[in-house]
Amino acid sequence: MDKKELQNLLEQVAEGQVKPEAALLQIKTEPYKDMGFAKLDTHRGIRQGMAEVIYGAGKTKEQIVKIAQAMVEEKEKTVLITRMSKEAADYVGEFLDLHYDEISRTGMVGQIPKPDGVGKIVVATGGTSDMAVAEEAALTAEVYGNEVVRLYDVGVAGMHRLMDHIEEIMSARVIVAIAGMEGALASVIGGMADCPVIAVPTSVGYGANFGGLSALLSMLNSCASGVSVVNIDNGFGAGYLASMINHLEGRKE
Amino acid sequence: MDKKELQNLLEQVAEGQVKPEAALLQIKTEPYKDMGFAKLDTHRGIRQGMAEVIYGAGKTKEQIVKIAQAMVEEKEKTVLITRMSKEAADYVGEFLDLHYDEISRTGMVGQIPKPDGVGKIVVATGGTSDMAVAEEAALTAEVYGNEVVRLYDVGVAGMHRLMDHIEEIMSARVIVAIAGMEGALASVIGGMADCPVIAVPTSVGYGANFGGLSALLSMLNSCASGVSVVNIDNGFGAGYLASMINHLEGRKE
Amino acid sequence: MDKKELQNLLEQVAEGQVKPEAALLQIKTEPYKDMGFAKLDTHRGIRQGMAEVIYGAGKTKEQIVKIAQAMVEEKEKTVLITRMSKEAADYVGEFLDLHYDEISRTGMVGQIPKPDGVGKIVVATGGTSDMAVAEEAALTAEVYGNEVVRLYDVGVAGMHRLMDHIEEIMSARVIVAIAGMEGALASVIGGMADCPVIAVPTSVGYGANFGGLSALLSMLNSCASGVSVVNIDNGFGAGYLASMINHLEGRKE
Amino acid sequence: MDKKELQNLLEQVAEGQVKPEAALLQIKTEPYKDMGFAKLDTHRGIRQGMAEVIYGAGKTKEQIVKIAQAMVEEKEKTVLITRMSKEAADYVGEFLDLHYDEISRTGMVGQIPKPDGVGKIVVATGGTSDMAVAEEAALTAEVYGNEVVRLYDVGVAGMHRLMDHIEEIMSARVIVAIAGMEGALASVIGGMADCPVIAVPTSVGYGANFGGLSALLSMLNSCASGVSVVNIDNGFGAGYLASMINHLEGRKE
Amino acid sequence: MDKKELQNLLEQVAEGQVKPEAALLQIKTEPYKDMGFAKLDTHRGIRQGMAEVIYGAGKTKEQIVKIAQAMVEEKEKTVLITRMSKEAADYVGEFLDLHYDEISRTGMVGQIPKPDGVGKIVVATGGTSDMAVAEEAALTAEVYGNEVVRLYDVGVAGMHRLMDHIEEIMSARVIVAIAGMEGALASVIGGMADCPVIAVPTSVGYGANFGGLSALLSMLNSCASGVSVVNIDNGFGAGYLASMINHLEGRKE
Amino acid sequence: MDKKELQNLLEQVAEGQVKPEAALLQIKTEPYKDMGFAKLDTHRGIRQGMAEVIYGAGKTKEQIVKIAQAMVEEKEKTVLITRMSKEAADYVGEFLDLHYDEISRTGMVGQIPKPDGVGKIVVATGGTSDMAVAEEAALTAEVYGNEVVRLYDVGVAGMHRLMDHIEEIMSARVIVAIAGMEGALASVIGGMADCPVIAVPTSVGYGANFGGLSALLSMLNSCASGVSVVNIDNGFGAGYLASMINHLEGRKE
Amino acid sequence: MDKKELQNLLEQVAEGQVKPEAALLQIKTEPYKDMGFAKLDTHRGIRQGMAEVIYGAGKTKEQIVKIAQAMVEEKEKTVLITRMSKEAADYVGEFLDLHYDEISRTGMVGQIPKPDGVGKIVVATGGTSDMAVAEEAALTAEVYGNEVVRLYDVGVAGMHRLMDHIEEIMSARVIVAIAGMEGALASVIGGMADCPVIAVPTSVGYGANFGGLSALLSMLNSCASGVSVVNIDNGFGAGYLASMINHLEGRKE
Amino acid sequence: MDKKELQNLLEQVAEGQVKPEAALLQIKTEPYKDMGFAKLDTHRGIRQGMAEVIYGAGKTKEQIVKIAQAMVEEKEKTVLITRMSKEAADYVGEFLDLHYDEISRTGMVGQIPKPDGVGKIVVATGGTSDMAVAEEAALTAEVYGNEVVRLYDVGVAGMHRLMDHIEEIMSARVIVAIAGMEGALASVIGGMADCPVIAVPTSVGYGANFGGLSALLSMLNSCASGVSVVNIDNGFGAGYLASMINHLEGRKE
Repeated sequence: MDKKELQNLLEQVAEGQVKPEAALLQIKTEPYKDMGFAKLDTHRGIRQGMAEVIYGAGKTKEQIVKIAQAMVEEKEKTVLITRMSKEAADYVGEFLDLHYDEISRTGMVGQIPKPDGVGKIVVATGGTSDMAVAEEAALTAEVYGNEVVRLYDVGVAGMHRLMDHIEEIMSARVIVAIAGMEGALASVIGGMADCPVIAVPTSVGYGANFGGLSALLSMLNSCASGVSVVNIDNGFGAGYLASMINHLEGRKE
Repeated sequence: MDKKELQNLLEQVAEGQVKPEAALLQIKTEPYKDMGFAKLDTHRGIRQGMAEVIYGAGKTKEQIVKIAQAMVEEKEKTVLITRMSKEAADYVGEFLDLHYDEISRTGMVGQIPKPDGVGKIVVATGGTSDMAVAEEAALTAEVYGNEVVRLYDVGVAGMHRLMDHIEEIMSARVIVAIAGMEGALASVIGGMADCPVIAVPTSVGYGANFGGLSALLSMLNSCASGVSVVNIDNGFGAGYLASMINHLEGRKE
Repeated sequence: MDKKELQNLLEQVAEGQVKPEAALLQIKTEPYKDMGFAKLDTHRGIRQGMAEVIYGAGKTKEQIVKIAQAMVEEKEKTVLITRMSKEAADYVGEFLDLHYDEISRTGMVGQIPKPDGVGKIVVATGGTSDMAVAEEAALTAEVYGNEVVRLYDVGVAGMHRLMDHIEEIMSARVIVAIAGMEGALASVIGGMADCPVIAVPTSVGYGANFGGLSALLSMLNSCASGVSVVNIDNGFGAGYLASMINHLEGRKE
Repeated sequence: MDKKELQNLLEQVAEGQVKPEAALLQIKTEPYKDMGFAKLDTHRGIRQGMAEVIYGAGKTKEQIVKIAQAMVEEKEKTVLITRMSKEAADYVGEFLDLHYDEISRTGMVGQIPKPDGVGKIVVATGGTSDMAVAEEAALTAEVYGNEVVRLYDVGVAGMHRLMDHIEEIMSARVIVAIAGMEGALASVIGGMADCPVIAVPTSVGYGANFGGLSALLSMLNSCASGVSVVNIDNGFGAGYLASMINHLEGRKE
Repeated sequence: MDKKELQNLLEQVAEGQVKPEAALLQIKTEPYKDMGFAKLDTHRGIRQGMAEVIYGAGKTKEQIVKIAQAMVEEKEKTVLITRMSKEAADYVGEFLDLHYDEISRTGMVGQIPKPDGVGKIVVATGGTSDMAVAEEAALTAEVYGNEVVRLYDVGVAGMHRLMDHIEEIMSARVIVAIAGMEGALASVIGGMADCPVIAVPTSVGYGANFGGLSALLSMLNSCASGVSVVNIDNGFGAGYLASMINHLEGRKE
Repeated sequence: MDKKELQNLLEQVAEGQVKPEAALLQIKTEPYKDMGFAKLDTHRGIRQGMAEVIYGAGKTKEQIVKIAQAMVEEKEKTVLITRMSKEAADYVGEFLDLHYDEISRTGMVGQIPKPDGVGKIVVATGGTSDMAVAEEAALTAEVYGNEVVRLYDVGVAGMHRLMDHIEEIMSARVIVAIAGMEGALASVIGGMADCPVIAVPTSVGYGANFGGLSALLSMLNSCASGVSVVNIDNGFGAGYLASMINHLEGRKE
Repeated sequence: MDKKELQNLLEQVAEGQVKPEAALLQIKTEPYKDMGFAKLDTHRGIRQGMAEVIYGAGKTKEQIVKIAQAMVEEKEKTVLITRMSKEAADYVGEFLDLHYDEISRTGMVGQIPKPDGVGKIVVATGGTSDMAVAEEAALTAEVYGNEVVRLYDVGVAGMHRLMDHIEEIMSARVIVAIAGMEGALASVIGGMADCPVIAVPTSVGYGANFGGLSALLSMLNSCASGVSVVNIDNGFGAGYLASMINHLEGRKE
Repeated sequence: MDKKELQNLLEQVAEGQVKPEAALLQIKTEPYKDMGFAKLDTHRGIRQGMAEVIYGAGKTKEQIVKIAQAMVEEKEKTVLITRMSKEAADYVGEFLDLHYDEISRTGMVGQIPKPDGVGKIVVATGGTSDMAVAEEAALTAEVYGNEVVRLYDVGVAGMHRLMDHIEEIMSARVIVAIAGMEGALASVIGGMADCPVIAVPTSVGYGANFGGLSALLSMLNSCASGVSVVNIDNGFGAGYLASMINHLEGRKE
């Protein structure tokens, strides 16, 4: 209920078309959806009717099936299920037409929609071991309607590998830079590109990487401008934010 | 020197218009600027000719004057100097027409340009003590050509203060959420808004805030989607990234 | 042996009714229970004869049965067993009439007593994954004689979910706010409510949550007054303290 | 505006006594204060008209005077100013009748009100160096209308000192246990008392106390039930929460 | 080879009784054993011929058997094997007459010797879960010839339990205080006793105990004098050091 | 009041010599001092009448004078004042005959007593910068009646420096090993000596020493047996404990 | 393509021998390999044609076989596979002639080449449990053509063990010092030797070793010059760097 | 005294030329210098008679003068004084002919010797703020006889700056890579160069750099081989080690 609708309602009350009690109920029961909070209810979907996401970790396979079925039934939607075990995927597959990606442990019900973002999202990783996180980011972005360019294993220990892809990097609208260990990829890409770079530290590594802390701190301290950071291993968060940025429209003439 | 220019150059060599030695020199001395790296040289300015930034911390006042003068002389530019002490500002003021903001310890030479971003940038803070960081972000964004809406002291301990500004939050193109202590502001705003939220943890607080660690971890673990994080107290980085996002154009028809 | 009883005993000695040796033994063997320490012996039960708690972690199933049986035999008590594995519960169930809650891994022998606290305890969680800790808190509070209102999954990423329950929050006598990840729930509820808020950080999350550290620091740095914190995942401690506060009587006329 | 008031308003609209535009404005401009959020505006004062608190850290002496004057002018209130330097206190003293406590760096304008809490608040410290934090807690509690019993320097390295005060501890309604170094006081008092214990870790100590971390972790891991923790050195927060608990009324007959 | 022996050797060379070559060899081949380093070779045994210890963690069961057999064969010794799994114990039991303690995962071949220390060693724990570490300490002390008094589950949350044993504590020659969680036991005992207290933090607990860090920091910051600390869970180290102190002889008349 | 005294008292009550009321008061008011807790009152002095210590940090110079004067007046005692600034020392020197050591910032009123410990205490340091802590330890030990052998700057980077003193190390009764940076001294000395080694980590160093953390962790993880650790920079604690061990008498014939 | 080649190319264009299009392609497609980056492509092999390394962790056994076969087929090379499970080794063994070392979990296909380094590499460990890391370092060094001297279990708790090998230490060209727990070995060896010492902290230990942090900090703070550090447990990195140093040739006459 | 000398001495004793007492004294007083430990005494100087270093931090200006004078008097040496304040430098300058570098706070008495290393040492920094550490490294290397190539401000945020110097990097014998913030420089250089890279993390930065921790962890986790790390800000250590490596001679024919 926006300002206009509230005004209408009050005028209807004044005109006797709506009873005060009915108006009371209406204002009372939908206070948030109606007064500017409406978007909150749907804040998880950038575009209504397109995609829904289930965070699979900590949910039983039965719960996942139940939630996914509800989503699918409601509308013709693509449902993405992140952090889902192979076992859960097998179970879900008995009830729904699930495509499961073992590397990123991500499942999908429905079709990847036709990309409708403004530009391309580059998803780059330092090493092959970062692929699990990268695929979570890439699949998320695809499900939300983005064209994704994958640049895997372009870590800074071999700069030429990265430089072979300078063109993709320079023409991206937003880049997701994923790296474990020393996490230098974000800085190097941030120094090359002139678009927003979303850095994802991964827990890949051992010893003094302290579960991803080394890459996290490295990325937070990036000397390159335009770099921001999400949680360790948070491929979904990066893919979602990248999609959000990629769907930002330009000025209205 | 992009692909086309290189092709031209080579053709001029083939045609004898340019000597091999001259071509060699040209390719050699500007190898990066000319072969796709050109943007790298200017990666710190989103729009050529508009603004330059000097990171004042760790520089002597003499160094600041010298660098600022060089920038000013070169072109008609706005020069922003961050993390500059009052003492340095007084000194710089003797040589250049400096506007100094004591709260954020930021100086500016030249005019704030007319905003040319797509939308508005909201800079919100949890408390009044976060203002130093917030003004660094806001001034940076303004210097880079953005319209900035300041929402200060709208911390989550008094939700109504934040909700009084729901309209500004809902209509922002990008939001910079700045908070110390528990850093909850980023999550709450991230849950309300459907635009990118750049979270800036501040070192405001004491005891178990451990110099900003509490707000940093809080923001990295935000349960709201669309939130990414920059370094503790990094107002400049947030303002720069916000400007970058706010200047992203839509699709070309 | 309180002051009065000691006085009586000494008078009996003076009157020759009790021998010095017998008095010596009596004073000696119960020195603490009798001289003001009595409450210490029973400090774990707020109200004598009502409830007993066994911390199941690190105890064998045989030990749990043994302790529980001793408690049950002694009096008509409700016995709560926290942090008990399903396997242990099955074993205990062979000997005692055990109700086991798989989510919180809590078992109960006996009946939940009729609530006799002053008001209601609200147990709120940020997400569904915090339910294990929340149920430990809620069951503990119920076993100690409290009416519990459960508000689950009202995290700050969707403020309207929390606001739909503003009434319950405003009318609670004490609130247990449970959240992992960024732990912002405690601050937001603390800002809304005007009763004591017991914050419980949970280890729910991944990456930079560092096993609950993010929520812990966030809650300790809460900008809202009236908030205090217990150990990570310590549902029992929160439920116990909430019950203690809820049973505080008002002034005696 | 509660339910009743909204109903009245709507009825007035229906009856033509209030114009829809006026009703719109009223609902729009005070959405939170009127619909159950009213308490939020005053959540910082437990009892209206009694006390106001200014957090002095990070504020200039001029700001403090200005805020304090505004508070004093408004009503006959006691104004507490925490974390105020001696220098600021001297300055404030030129404008207002300020009582300044150098140990806790706390200032007060107005009178300490007559205690109206249900019972007594015990403020106990491990050592004399914890007194700064303790006085902040004690003065806060007194300003909010509580009788405070001070037990200073009763640390666990000399248990008899603490035990000499067993009576005060046993008869308190709520205890604030303040300690630096190993922070064991909270556990020992928590084991003795059967009322809520608010533990305040202090940064007192050196070396491996890591700025209060040792006491903080110690208190969070307390093996005694009924103990909760606030931020390091947060005397105000503990005093405020203690007052809140001490003012909880019993059941209404 | 001490000073005297070296002098003798040189004199024998001067007198022609020993050839220079033979002297050279003797000085060269035994430089450490002979010149004061001899004790180094046997520094792990306080008293020659009494006890040997094998640190079982990280050794295969075959290795343990081999080392233990070599030790047993050499002399009539008691061999203590710490941190040995049940499985390894079963295997070792096939070859040697092993007594295995499941709680502390400690095995012993041979007899516990008659105590020959000066006084008694008290081994006290905060809770029953600390028993594994306590038994490692106690058995180590016994194997090295000490009378051990066990005071288990005397944690500070119930001070009377500890005070019931004030006599044992006051008459100990050295005390090993073992506790997890908040580790307050060491400070309280340190405040009571006037003998050296060896504090052993344990990893018992959860959440913010961070694997024993809370107890470790607590003990290092103990406000009681005479307390020193060993590594987390290091029962052996504490038992060994306690034995060393308990075997210190008084002055020679 | 020990068992015998209590028995006497009760018999006096039985015989009518003492009134029950008087007995009640006596038992009630001195429960701890009389029943075995008496020693607690004097636990800070190893030997009555010998030495008193004032921890100067956080005390004003006036407070130090006052406490010191009270101690001196009471008996003929040596008073040690640790962590006292030069300024405070100058002030105290106006009132008392103070010997001040600038390196360790330790003051002493009265004479260093004749050593009466069983053996010698070796105080060894890794570098010259550790001398401040070392002198605090050495002076403490001397004030408590011990002969101290100082071995400074014998760090492990030059093993020969340490080995030149193998004799002192081998003949010590207890060793205080003080080192910053990597703290290896404790392990090396622990491997050489067969007496208790008290390790004191110091905050000497920079960068990744993190205020003494590196030396602290190093010493806690010492692979040498017989080593225990006190707080970072805690020279007093080490000297006190060393004295305690050095005054342990042998068995009574 | 170095300067000379580029000059030639341009001259060929000028002379019409090469078409501009062909030149463009050549400059464009090989910008890095040709302009000094060529070595980048082969930076992982110190000497072409000798050895290849596969980091086995995080790779499936099928992937390892595939990569190893490709390497073997290409040339007559020795292939080293680090961090490979026994299970993977068994599988790889079915396809290739693999020598597997269970201790370091390292496999090798092909022959260890004849050492061609300048001197000897000493690999020393503090304890036997550090052998896994040590063998990874030693085998790596051997595969890269170095003579390796193994000094295992020469930890500082028994200095004589280390000193028995003073000769090997003094004559090494580079030393790899591997230790867990307190990591003192690096400092002691660094103090003895006058060649570069590569320190490898290991995660061996428990409690306050925090997964290798204690040894890591210890080694970083080493008071001995000439010591540098690699990641925790990084035997490969140390062996590789040692080989690099050992193959540095002297000056060319 | 090496083997030969000892043999000679013993033969002289046998022949009566040297008295046993004199031989005893000689062996006794120089046990380490003579028996293989000789190098230990001079381990801090790579080449006798060339350079001496004084670590100025924590030393008084008087101490520095005294030590420097002793060094200068002894021989014709270059004396380097690191971490010396301007004030101390002024004082030392009154007594000795001191060259003081304000940026690195390093002083030098005597001449920089002619380089005699095998190759060149590259000292590279990420930013200009790292210059203090870089100059400490460079001056140290120069004082020890090395040719140093300085590449300052070649951080990874502008890759082209670094690539402009690819030639210097490729032809270095050893590289010192110095960077704060995210410390990525070490990895990028490590990936380019095929010589040893000594990484020096600096404390340059703010917020989540935690005093250099971010760069330290980043460098320890470097994905590039051939990289090792020294302590935060340890320019001297890096320069010393670089010199050591640069002076390693090749094989003797």
